[in-house]
Amino acid sequence: MAGKRIYLDWNATAPLLNEAREAMLAALAMPGNPSSVHSEGRAARALVEKARRQVASLVGAETQHVVFTSTATEAANLALSPRYRMGRSPLSLTRLYVSAIEHPAVRLGGRFAAEAITEIAVTPQGQVDLAALEALLAAHPADAGLPLVAVMLANNETGIVQPIAEIARLVHGKGGLLVVDAVQAAGRIPVNIAALDADFLMISAHKLGGPKGAGALIARGETLMPEPLIRGGGQEKGHRGGTENLAGIAGFGAACEIAEKQLIERNFRIAALREKLEEGMRKAAPDVIIHGAEVDRIANTTFFSLPGLKAETGQIAFDLEGVALSAGAACSSGKVGQSHVLTAMGRDAALGGLRLSLGPETTEEDIDHALAAFARIAARRRVTGHAA
Amino acid sequence: MAGKRIYLDWNATAPLLNEAREAMLAALAMPGNPSSVHSEGRAARALVEKARRQVASLVGAETQHVVFTSTATEAANLALSPRYRMGRSPLSLTRLYVSAIEHPAVRLGGRFAAEAITEIAVTPQGQVDLAALEALLAAHPADAGLPLVAVMLANNETGIVQPIAEIARLVHGKGGLLVVDAVQAAGRIPVNIAALDADFLMISAHKLGGPKGAGALIARGETLMPEPLIRGGGQEKGHRGGTENLAGIAGFGAACEIAEKQLIERNFRIAALREKLEEGMRKAAPDVIIHGAEVDRIANTTFFSLPGLKAETGQIAFDLEGVALSAGAACSSGKVGQSHVLTAMGRDAALGGLRLSLGPETTEEDIDHALAAFARIAARRRVTGHAA
Repeated sequence: MAGKRIYLDWNATAPLLNEAREAMLAALAMPGNPSSVHSEGRAARALVEKARRQVASLVGAETQHVVFTSTATEAANLALSPRYRMGRSPLSLTRLYVSAIEHPAVRLGGRFAAEAITEIAVTPQGQVDLAALEALLAAHPADAGLPLVAVMLANNETGIVQPIAEIARLVHGKGGLLVVDAVQAAGRIPVNIAALDADFLMISAHKLGGPKGAGALIARGETLMPEPLIRGGGQEKGHRGGTENLAGIAGFGAACEIAEKQLIERNFRIAALREKLEEGMRKAAPDVIIHGAEVDRIANTTFFSLPGLKAETGQIAFDLEGVALSAGAACSSGKVGQSHVLTAMGRDAALGGLRLSLGPETTEEDIDHALAAFARIAARRRVTGHAA
Repeated sequence: MAGKRIYLDWNATAPLLNEAREAMLAALAMPGNPSSVHSEGRAARALVEKARRQVASLVGAETQHVVFTSTATEAANLALSPRYRMGRSPLSLTRLYVSAIEHPAVRLGGRFAAEAITEIAVTPQGQVDLAALEALLAAHPADAGLPLVAVMLANNETGIVQPIAEIARLVHGKGGLLVVDAVQAAGRIPVNIAALDADFLMISAHKLGGPKGAGALIARGETLMPEPLIRGGGQEKGHRGGTENLAGIAGFGAACEIAEKQLIERNFRIAALREKLEEGMRKAAPDVIIHGAEVDRIANTTFFSLPGLKAETGQIAFDLEGVALSAGAACSSGKVGQSHVLTAMGRDAALGGLRLSLGPETTEEDIDHALAAFARIAARRRVTGHAA
């Protein structure tokens, strides 16, 4: 394990940006609690509100519609609630529809009972099946309550971009609400809550160069909100109690500002590196399957399967070669279990897939190194595996 | 507002310890996600587990019984649930009993419906009324389900220490569960989960020199746990989903280690400073009321009322004098509202109280400065207020 390490697991977590670190250090030096009214408290509060503007700007939202949470997972558990409020009136959402390729944080359905959750099928190409969604919504008994639909903007394993605007049209046509997990999309493709016509977005700081421990639920408006998940001292206008993670929020804001500024330039460069990567992989192992290569993907993600190489084995082999990648999602990669994304796409989940995900600091040399490792691992597999 | 600032609001939040900052910087430099299996991921995981040992040690718990949360408020919302599991069997808790002086995070009752929450009275001295609790528990209909009782170890406004061991005896005598908010006690008095005979403790990093954004629910055992509040990728053994706040947790651990090492020495010094403070206050304004002075308090807190000086007015006056203090709890100090603690103690809540809270970095000079400010404010009040 000696020697150079190549980090190609940016979808699991992105290294901290310098700008985010600086913002955090400044916040850590402030003594006050953002809820205190003395000048130390007001200075801390000002940092939170600056970050709120930065986060809102990245996704084209109104500043006051950003609710800071500890993680995007928390934001999902907040949004996925059968109990909402429209102003002061309670509003019931009777059924949650989630795509079969959602992150576990969404797929588990937050505060919905398991029997009130319906899965939306995806196509073999890894995109939500619009006809299937339309049929589900047509069958939804609207007299009992409205449907809540949750679909991610970009899948965390494959990087495949989902047809959110079309989904929004279907959902809103039935009077439902649409919650969009934009965790992997933010900073990688333009994300605008109004253009997507989403009712809620979730994003996470640590996927875009901010720290772990900060996320947000971003609403389209402010009259319609879920019942709080965490109640306490009235922070976040009562939507989320508990003392704010001041440094985490400051770092989150700074990372969003950089992500917004560098969006085009960063991803143009990353797309070229991924093209080089995938070309090299196909040359070294013509039987490699790159999932989603034929549809729209975020520019940084390559999710592949290699016949004769089980994902768990491959993950260890790459780690020993100095390359950090994931077998599926990071959050479940420590556990035994197959990729629900591959299963949903009707692919060979027993073989599994490996995810290489690039970031703004990824270099040509990193790609060369990863390709050399890939070629060696693919060659060994030919000898020991059930040869191609 | 120019000139020296004296920070005497350590119960709202404590400035970050250098050791915690160093631990955070080291964590922020690590690229991995603690759930990833590659070496970057395993290094991040090791930091989380080190912090878990440090946190457990401060409260005499088993390491594996610490569940990291984003805040103590989140930990309270996790623990205060009518739905628990005993191993794999569901267990129903039918009623929550909370003392009248709990922090809002507990008083609101987490996942209990408002009608399933009963308040426990406190004595005029600010301690939970044991006879009242005994009567409530005697009337609890045990055949429907067990009682859950939540009482804090030290009150955040007054600093008054509650008779937890006696409360535990009453609660366990009825087969109930006891949840103890140890947020203000940890680092100030010895806290040992077994000696207190509590089933769960909540603590918060930022009250003891760690960063904002990290807390923990600490259990006595591991067979009996609340249903998760935040579900997601299976982190924290499934008790709390979402990528861990790596830097926050590392800083929390470091702060707990320092708090444990310096507990006696720190608080001995702080107790002497508070004695000087309260003597000086009584000399400058003999009519000052120091709440809880006659009972057991943590060593750093002085909660006082000054006839003729409304708390809101006093808070601004002290801020202008360069002294940061709180009118009641920080989390609600930005809002209009009376101290529920003073109300519960049967004191003049319209007048309100002001809280001076000291910390390890508080100096004699700080106390002198605060006393000079106090004397000026008390004297002005004699002129403009309804004179003593």
